[in-house]
Amino acid sequence: MEKVVLKTKTLPLNKIQINDPFWSYYINLVRDVVIPYQWEALNDRIPDAEPSSAIKNFKIAAGEEEGEFHGMVFQDSDVAKWLEAVGYLLSVESDEELEKIADGIIDIIAKAQLEDGYLNTYYTLKEPGKRWTDLSECHELYCAGHMIEAAVAYYQATGKRKILDVVIKFADHIDDVFGTEPGKLRGYDGHQEIELALIKLYEVTSNDKYLRLSQYFLEERGRKPHFYEEEFKKRGGTYHWPDSWMIRNKEYSQAHKPVSEQDKAVGHAVRFVYMCTGMAHLAAETGNREMYEASKRLWNNMVSKNMYITGGIGSQSHGEAFSTDYDLPNDTVYAETCASIGLIFFAQRMLQVEPNSQYADIMERALYNTVLAGMGHDGKSFFYVNPLEVEPHVCGSNHIYHHVKPTRQRWFGCACCPPNVARLLASLGQYIYTVRENTVYTHLYISGQAEIELDDNRRLILEQETNYPWSGNIQFTIKADQETELTLALRIPDWCENAEISINGELKSVSALMIDGYAMIKGTWKTGDQINLVLPMPVVRVKGHPLVRHTAGKVALQRGPLVYCLEEADNGQNLHQILLPSDRSLEIEEDENLLGGMKVITGEAIKRKTENWGEALYKPNIHLETESVSIKFIPYFAWANRGLGEMQVWVNEKETL
Amino acid sequence: MEKVVLKTKTLPLNKIQINDPFWSYYINLVRDVVIPYQWEALNDRIPDAEPSSAIKNFKIAAGEEEGEFHGMVFQDSDVAKWLEAVGYLLSVESDEELEKIADGIIDIIAKAQLEDGYLNTYYTLKEPGKRWTDLSECHELYCAGHMIEAAVAYYQATGKRKILDVVIKFADHIDDVFGTEPGKLRGYDGHQEIELALIKLYEVTSNDKYLRLSQYFLEERGRKPHFYEEEFKKRGGTYHWPDSWMIRNKEYSQAHKPVSEQDKAVGHAVRFVYMCTGMAHLAAETGNREMYEASKRLWNNMVSKNMYITGGIGSQSHGEAFSTDYDLPNDTVYAETCASIGLIFFAQRMLQVEPNSQYADIMERALYNTVLAGMGHDGKSFFYVNPLEVEPHVCGSNHIYHHVKPTRQRWFGCACCPPNVARLLASLGQYIYTVRENTVYTHLYISGQAEIELDDNRRLILEQETNYPWSGNIQFTIKADQETELTLALRIPDWCENAEISINGELKSVSALMIDGYAMIKGTWKTGDQINLVLPMPVVRVKGHPLVRHTAGKVALQRGPLVYCLEEADNGQNLHQILLPSDRSLEIEEDENLLGGMKVITGEAIKRKTENWGEALYKPNIHLETESVSIKFIPYFAWANRGLGEMQVWVNEKETL
Repeated sequence: MEKVVLKTKTLPLNKIQINDPFWSYYINLVRDVVIPYQWEALNDRIPDAEPSSAIKNFKIAAGEEEGEFHGMVFQDSDVAKWLEAVGYLLSVESDEELEKIADGIIDIIAKAQLEDGYLNTYYTLKEPGKRWTDLSECHELYCAGHMIEAAVAYYQATGKRKILDVVIKFADHIDDVFGTEPGKLRGYDGHQEIELALIKLYEVTSNDKYLRLSQYFLEERGRKPHFYEEEFKKRGGTYHWPDSWMIRNKEYSQAHKPVSEQDKAVGHAVRFVYMCTGMAHLAAETGNREMYEASKRLWNNMVSKNMYITGGIGSQSHGEAFSTDYDLPNDTVYAETCASIGLIFFAQRMLQVEPNSQYADIMERALYNTVLAGMGHDGKSFFYVNPLEVEPHVCGSNHIYHHVKPTRQRWFGCACCPPNVARLLASLGQYIYTVRENTVYTHLYISGQAEIELDDNRRLILEQETNYPWSGNIQFTIKADQETELTLALRIPDWCENAEISINGELKSVSALMIDGYAMIKGTWKTGDQINLVLPMPVVRVKGHPLVRHTAGKVALQRGPLVYCLEEADNGQNLHQILLPSDRSLEIEEDENLLGGMKVITGEAIKRKTENWGEALYKPNIHLETESVSIKFIPYFAWANRGLGEMQVWVNEKETL
Repeated sequence: MEKVVLKTKTLPLNKIQINDPFWSYYINLVRDVVIPYQWEALNDRIPDAEPSSAIKNFKIAAGEEEGEFHGMVFQDSDVAKWLEAVGYLLSVESDEELEKIADGIIDIIAKAQLEDGYLNTYYTLKEPGKRWTDLSECHELYCAGHMIEAAVAYYQATGKRKILDVVIKFADHIDDVFGTEPGKLRGYDGHQEIELALIKLYEVTSNDKYLRLSQYFLEERGRKPHFYEEEFKKRGGTYHWPDSWMIRNKEYSQAHKPVSEQDKAVGHAVRFVYMCTGMAHLAAETGNREMYEASKRLWNNMVSKNMYITGGIGSQSHGEAFSTDYDLPNDTVYAETCASIGLIFFAQRMLQVEPNSQYADIMERALYNTVLAGMGHDGKSFFYVNPLEVEPHVCGSNHIYHHVKPTRQRWFGCACCPPNVARLLASLGQYIYTVRENTVYTHLYISGQAEIELDDNRRLILEQETNYPWSGNIQFTIKADQETELTLALRIPDWCENAEISINGELKSVSALMIDGYAMIKGTWKTGDQINLVLPMPVVRVKGHPLVRHTAGKVALQRGPLVYCLEEADNGQNLHQILLPSDRSLEIEEDENLLGGMKVITGEAIKRKTENWGEALYKPNIHLETESVSIKFIPYFAWANRGLGEMQVWVNEKETL
């Protein structure tokens, strides 16, 4: 098959340092709060929390403890995600104590592995002999994928092979079991994850059997006769989840047709983006045109018809799933934090296929809005669901909001989102740059430095200094062993007009430099060279596509990458009666008291009065009185940090029609 | 306890003739289509429909057939509701063939009754020995109530006592079993219905033990220790519905506290209004102040904070239930047809307690909008759920709309709403008038005549002639054996301003006549006297209470009692982009082609253009182009008779703020 791409490479995490006024706070939270706390939780040492049993399951499987398996069928993955995050933290900064803890659990995991390489405590302890009999429902390959990701991260951080060897043995076993060859099981996973993990294993081992195995899983998916039905019959019609719905509803796990024929974002949003991440990564590695085209088609459908302005995906709680094109309700939305994290993985792989700023724009949108909103400022509370509109008092009363929590939940109440936030933030450096031949792409504006090894073994250090996202001024400084010819590609975000670039003080015409959303600055660089990028950040009024019912007549404010919202704490109750005039100016102000200081947007609006109406529910021929009110918008990610209250991203607009 | 009321009496159905250009069509549909069709369905003779088995169950219990019970635990009630509707039809007009069929099933029902009076085919056939062990979940008293209502209706129509004697024997048995006396079961029903039925039985037998039994069931409800818990323990923790939720969720069946302490419309909407009907009826019969005050409190909460403009109640599908005050979503609404029918029962009983037009206003609203919308113009298709806003293509895609059908369903797919519509329309005459001492109240404007027997055995015939709801001109003509002093109380609807009344051609000042919403026309009447009532019917723009999020910035049109809506068939797609200017005139036009002819509302509106936008889901600093469009509103009840399409009751308004 014709190769369509030249892979754009991600920089190794240990070559990136983040030292950023905005992000360092969150990354330190992960290191100092989230990871230690999660370790306690995995070890059942959090009072008042339901025991996780995840570590205990491994200890029992390793023969170190007595007892029974407890938890979900995918409980192992919680340990894996923790270990993966630890790997990323250790890549950036060594921590002997943490490494010792990690080595300890790795020893236990290794002991829990069976002789033939199989590793899964649920099946080993609870259903021995039943392995690989219910792939559609029981997450064996999903857990395998997470353990592989963890192993790769930990190996890359420490150079220690123990856990890597464990997963290689496991992956080899999986390769022996699955495939199209006679005698092999021609099946695939119910929850995609192994596909993207195997490519990571290929990257670190250079053994292309893992690449082929990933491709096998992707290409086998959704074929007829349908594997879910076959294995369901084979095991006598038993099922793990009620009424076998997970087997019957094949769109839920994107197994309704072969991936190469899929063209719409459907089903469980996390499964969808994990699958697409694998597809795009495979395309980047192999140049497989079918995978490339399918990834791109699915990306386009998702971002142009099924994504919230916050980078949230998944319009409904039922199946944590996409709905249909342009159905994007703001209040009953799901927009799971994990789904936006998966969206960032997908965007990163698309950038490996083709450097085009549309992928980085969406990556930035999801990161600064949904993902960041997913974790409280304390690092101990999390949203699964990220609504764009909340009226707290109806959440417990009307079933359509049963999944919407108006306050973040303590993390141990959840299993998937907090460790996912942890592993993303701990590896944030990976998302800032990519390199392709002699071009270094900058996708995100985050202070710190990157050490770039170029093809001919030259080395260049790129320093970024910025107060992004509060300011759009970014200064790059070069350090190089020798004069280096190189193109620096700086993303000009989709929200930005009139960007300015100057090189060593000399202003350049940006429009002349633009290719696929990047300003391509070709130069021969030496230590001390400076590039200044100015991305003006006025307040922007955003409108939704006219086919979206839920944004009709409404406007959302954005400044830089940040989407803003109204909160009751600043604007009182009944946000639905506020109208933002389209013709009045909005001011940007510094609010030093809000979560350590941030830029807020203030202005004047019109509000319909709710008093003086009286008792009647409906009234004829009445004109509601209005008043002028001062309003204040705060960044969406910062909502729900000041007690219970209403919140709105999309605000009614008073238009001059 | 102090009596608070003087009961206002309903007229017997056989004293009312309806001969109305609007309603006769629907009543004939019930007689000619619905009742015959339903009989076939109850007898499992509809091809392609799931067999009902309801008649068969009775035949098996009667020893006339072999077999097993099939259907829901409340399957008997379908037969009862059918028989009740037949009773009403026979009250108005004799029909030998229909009466013969009814007598036949009555014979079978009588044979199915056990020696001690017990009657319920589910328990007799399927769980013998288990009767009265699961009242919270299993509808025994509910089915009993429906059979009592049927018996009363049939007896009143035909004078035949057979079915009446059956239910008297059954009610006596229930009275032997239930009560506070030692040795009796101190329990009550899970689905309210027996309460209102027993009062009907009291009305026809004058045996006040049924009144006391009804009062017992109402007063016992919600007391501690909780009966549901007690019987749950007693039967060893078994349950009929999954996870015993119906036992645990006590608000669902309004058993969370004693009825006299309840002050909010909560839980299953049909249960709620059936309970309130019993409470208000008890208050009307006995003057019980506690019941009166509780009924009124619950009525007020329901109509002033929890009712749609269409007279629909129940904001959510989960539990077919109310949500919380002012939470009235238009698209995910439940608004079950049966609930609005129950609301009419409740209103009728409140009118018996105190003649105040607010009850009749709501009765009219529910009748002309939700109830009438519940049945298709063909009489063969029905809505359970009556949304105020529909976008058909999302109904199958987003779970929050799983209950919303954008087209009426063939009636045999449902069990409860079609027979409920049938019994309401067949007994519509009962809702037009009430009499209290020497005052005759007219609540509904429907052509026909009523024979009124006054306290002193005088008789007066009141003739109504009108083209309501299309016209607000109503002419009353008197026929009287002798000159009769009497007050004619004519409701001036809440939607009407500037009503005019003339008596024998002489104009009267309406405002001087008004008491509690009725124009009280005192006179000494003789044959040929004429009263002309003119209720002007301009188009009225209605607004929702400012605390209702779902009507903010929107307007609904009403003309007379009819709420109007926009449909895609007249106005194209994307109704959400239409804005109705607050300052432009609207015209009333006759549309002869629409379902036999009706008045529609036309005008000019503004529509945001949906073309020319392009691909992007979100765009900065953009102003959508608009165009002027002609729009047409049709009565809400007539929607969904012209194929699949969008519909909206509440339309965005372009206000001059």
